[in-house]
Amino acid sequence: MTFSSKLIEKAVEAFAGLPGIGRKSALRLVLHLLKQDKQVTVQFAQALVAMREGIRDCRVCHNLSDDELCRFCADQRRDKSTVCVVENVRDLMAIEDTGQFHGLYHVLGGIISPMDGIGPSELNIDALMQRLEAGEIKEVIMAISPTIEGETTIYYLSKKIQPLGIQVSAIARGVSFGGDLEYADELTLGRSIAARVPYRS
Amino acid sequence: MTFSSKLIEKAVEAFAGLPGIGRKSALRLVLHLLKQDKQVTVQFAQALVAMREGIRDCRVCHNLSDDELCRFCADQRRDKSTVCVVENVRDLMAIEDTGQFHGLYHVLGGIISPMDGIGPSELNIDALMQRLEAGEIKEVIMAISPTIEGETTIYYLSKKIQPLGIQVSAIARGVSFGGDLEYADELTLGRSIAARVPYRS
Repeated sequence: MTFSSKLIEKAVEAFAGLPGIGRKSALRLVLHLLKQDKQVTVQFAQALVAMREGIRDCRVCHNLSDDELCRFCADQRRDKSTVCVVENVRDLMAIEDTGQFHGLYHVLGGIISPMDGIGPSELNIDALMQRLEAGEIKEVIMAISPTIEGETTIYYLSKKIQPLGIQVSAIARGVSFGGDLEYADELTLGRSIAARVPYRS
Repeated sequence: MTFSSKLIEKAVEAFAGLPGIGRKSALRLVLHLLKQDKQVTVQFAQALVAMREGIRDCRVCHNLSDDELCRFCADQRRDKSTVCVVENVRDLMAIEDTGQFHGLYHVLGGIISPMDGIGPSELNIDALMQRLEAGEIKEVIMAISPTIEGETTIYYLSKKIQPLGIQVSAIARGVSFGGDLEYADELTLGRSIAARVPYRS
């Protein structure tokens, strides 16, 4: 790609450095910004810098937050007896979007993965244990992906949490709602038979 | 999508305002920036603002440029007797990337399209005529998309340019190299038979 302008080249390279954006898409984005008012680009840049410089970890749950406490930890209406443990902020948002959970969260910041050199000490586990030892929490829900690393993480955490007399649960696994049985993978289908539940009509 | 942070929400909305980026992709980009050093975001923002505020039209050919003259107009090694007329900067870059053209360019900034309210006066046609009247240019190559609007634009320009005694040519149209004849559209195939050229081995 031949650029006649160094300024454009640098802007294209900036966009192309982001995941999933190639140089052709990057050029399209740059040309789009050039068609808009200057102020659009300035505000775009300001929003990103303000976000990157202002964002911090919630002191309690390690969710991304504008303030010392995140929106959930600061919200007095949330059920403070239930904590949902998630791998990352994206999973937290997915659960929150279901509208089915009204307790608090705890963001681990990853899962135990010896292959990637991530052990328990790299995760926000000490902070979780401190919260649990404070005594207000009655149930911990593991909302962690059902992968080998995820299961390992759940096992590790449950071994630490159960001695405190706190209920540990995991989100239900099984065939997806609306999914076709014949397309469900063998492991999921097999386990969903083994873990069958009494039918409630 | 539930955001626990206003800063993140604004950054996601900023990205999602760009063409082809939805809110899910926007969130992925924002979380990517959060994983990087702060400096990455600051430099990204600076590259965009510097581009948007610094870029201007080349005084001669209306290509995007860092300076008063663009890289091509300022380059003494380019063939100043040939001008390639293009619709926009992206087409200019596509032609330059072929490495087959060594003359100068002229960016119209669009094509004549009565449906979109774009007439000749909206395009950089006066500037082109001024360049041609200066006398140094011997050939004008129309590198404009073979659409109805494109053909109209070429016709309009050729009627203005030919009286100056300047050669007007258009890029060759026909079946694509490497393309399968059976997949070529009828119009292209029909015209490429009508416009057949003597075979040179």
